Amino acid sequence: MKKGEFELISSIKEMFPTPSGVLGIGDDCAVLPQAEGCETLVSTDMLIEGVHFIRERITPFQLGWKAAAVNFSDIAAMGGEPEGSFLALSLPSDLPDGWVEGFMDGYRSISKEYGFPLLGGDTTSSKGPVCICVTVLGRAPKGRSLKRSGARPGDLICVTGTLGDSAAGLMALLGGLAPDASEMESDFASKAFAPGPGCDYAIGLSAPFLGTAGPAVSKLILKHVCPRPRIAEGLALAAAEGVHAAMDISDGVGSDLRHILEESGVRAEVDTRRVPVSPELELFCGAEGKDLLECALSGGEDYELLFTVDPEAEKSLSVAHTVIGRITAEPGLKWKGSRRNFTGYKHF
Amino acid sequence: MKKGEFELISSIKEMFPTPSGVLGIGDDCAVLPQAEGCETLVSTDMLIEGVHFIRERITPFQLGWKAAAVNFSDIAAMGGEPEGSFLALSLPSDLPDGWVEGFMDGYRSISKEYGFPLLGGDTTSSKGPVCICVTVLGRAPKGRSLKRSGARPGDLICVTGTLGDSAAGLMALLGGLAPDASEMESDFASKAFAPGPGCDYAIGLSAPFLGTAGPAVSKLILKHVCPRPRIAEGLALAAAEGVHAAMDISDGVGSDLRHILEESGVRAEVDTRRVPVSPELELFCGAEGKDLLECALSGGEDYELLFTVDPEAEKSLSVAHTVIGRITAEPGLKWKGSRRNFTGYKHF
Repeated sequence: MKKGEFELISSIKEMFPTPSGVLGIGDDCAVLPQAEGCETLVSTDMLIEGVHFIRERITPFQLGWKAAAVNFSDIAAMGGEPEGSFLALSLPSDLPDGWVEGFMDGYRSISKEYGFPLLGGDTTSSKGPVCICVTVLGRAPKGRSLKRSGARPGDLICVTGTLGDSAAGLMALLGGLAPDASEMESDFASKAFAPGPGCDYAIGLSAPFLGTAGPAVSKLILKHVCPRPRIAEGLALAAAEGVHAAMDISDGVGSDLRHILEESGVRAEVDTRRVPVSPELELFCGAEGKDLLECALSGGEDYELLFTVDPEAEKSLSVAHTVIGRITAEPGLKWKGSRRNFTGYKHF
Repeated sequence: MKKGEFELISSIKEMFPTPSGVLGIGDDCAVLPQAEGCETLVSTDMLIEGVHFIRERITPFQLGWKAAAVNFSDIAAMGGEPEGSFLALSLPSDLPDGWVEGFMDGYRSISKEYGFPLLGGDTTSSKGPVCICVTVLGRAPKGRSLKRSGARPGDLICVTGTLGDSAAGLMALLGGLAPDASEMESDFASKAFAPGPGCDYAIGLSAPFLGTAGPAVSKLILKHVCPRPRIAEGLALAAAEGVHAAMDISDGVGSDLRHILEESGVRAEVDTRRVPVSPELELFCGAEGKDLLECALSGGEDYELLFTVDPEAEKSLSVAHTVIGRITAEPGLKWKGSRRNFTGYKHF
């Protein structure tokens, strides 16, 4: 890193305008207004190089995007409205030129898109791995935020989007496959896939040992490196009647659903034949001989929403979703349509 | 570390009861009530082994205390009331037995004393250095929080407590001197000084090359390893009329005062002869040939409050303080009583 702490802070301050009525970067604390009838939502996550990401396999833009995304997803899971984020960074001095700028560009892109102003943080120079800690604040009407503890017997278990794409994207990256930006249509994809300092995957590289078509792999990788938190969906679920519990899927339904069951004191059965998967995931698993259900239920990092809802209320939900099972009172978590058990991604 | 992530989280959850009306550890976000006429204060700080502390020279208890203290101090600096804290930890797997427990004991001790419930966090196992990120939330009546930007020409510049003790305590520790718990009177000091796993300074060791008496050194070291954030003082200053600007002293007045001047668009003169120092610091600097003013003005980590106040209002302040200078409109920052310039502690 070539810049001193104060220079870095002041360039970051310029990149992130503070909304009116809020005190952002530059004082001992950020100051945010409170409102009668509201509650504050807070979540924090730490990402460590070598544990959560490999610097050579993720561009600084992607990492900046993803560090924010996994936290914004926690606000989405509670049905909150974005208020702001805080970013603490420990950066080794041997980072290549442009790395910090690329990281902040990714962080800014998602912050802008989702309306999360950066309101404060901390920077440190170290010898160690890159260490990123993001804290995020949101707001919900009092008593309306979606908790893990509200699931009731009879509720339908639902998910947004498709599951397993991110896990397959990670497999593709670790297997040496790279996204092909030329086959993606949006401006965003070409920015998200542009090579960055210190990340040496070659765009458009065809990995000989993987037979999957380029565009499908690019979509899976994009879901892994630049996940899109379900903020709008979370807000709609929190506003709807009959949604009893929710969380975001970070470790796979096989792990995350167990948190809802434990916190709510209930059980469940999941019909594995109803788990929504993308055509790209089917293509990838078919061509590469990977296990589709393992990707979808134990892969993790989907950042889709998992929620339970009263069956009557489910019919009129405005949020696109798939019913995958039902909350029960009987002991155990049953996986219909499969003889296996799914336990999600393990950290330690 | 011997425990899995979920075990560690559940043992931490038991140690830290959540106040009623608040949702703490265990969901995607913590949930805190908001109130009409209030504002939320937020600050975050990252501490990295090898940069901010040396694991062999600080006990886990001290580190847990200090990691919280430096953040609580930011709430104090804004005149806020404690709401809660969030702790993200990345821990190498080679930590000695009892290290995490000692760390959490220190974190709990200060959290309990200052009324900051632990409401959430994140834990990771890594190969790298110990990495700690604390985020802290406080509350202040709307428009009453103390900012850096309000200083006015004519204001008196004041500090709480004495300056330079922490810097001298660090010098003593780095010079091989250890605290002597037997000479400290409180239960707290004996707990704060008890040797901890992985920290091998010998209690009561007399370092031959340092001639300072034991009790004085113990007090200086205590100020360095277990600083006491000025929460009550901050609340009283925010409630008083005529206090225009404040911050906490983390890098020394020589650095921190410049932030107030810059944010407020004013200048200042400081009378170096009025800077409050403790008898212990005088003793230490005399015996060890250290520069008293350098410790007091550039040493840093005092976590005292630096504030500016209208001269009339200063007379009736209920908070114990020392006037060290005056805000002026003339260019420059002048140090009366010394030919030198003081610039504070440099990070990068």
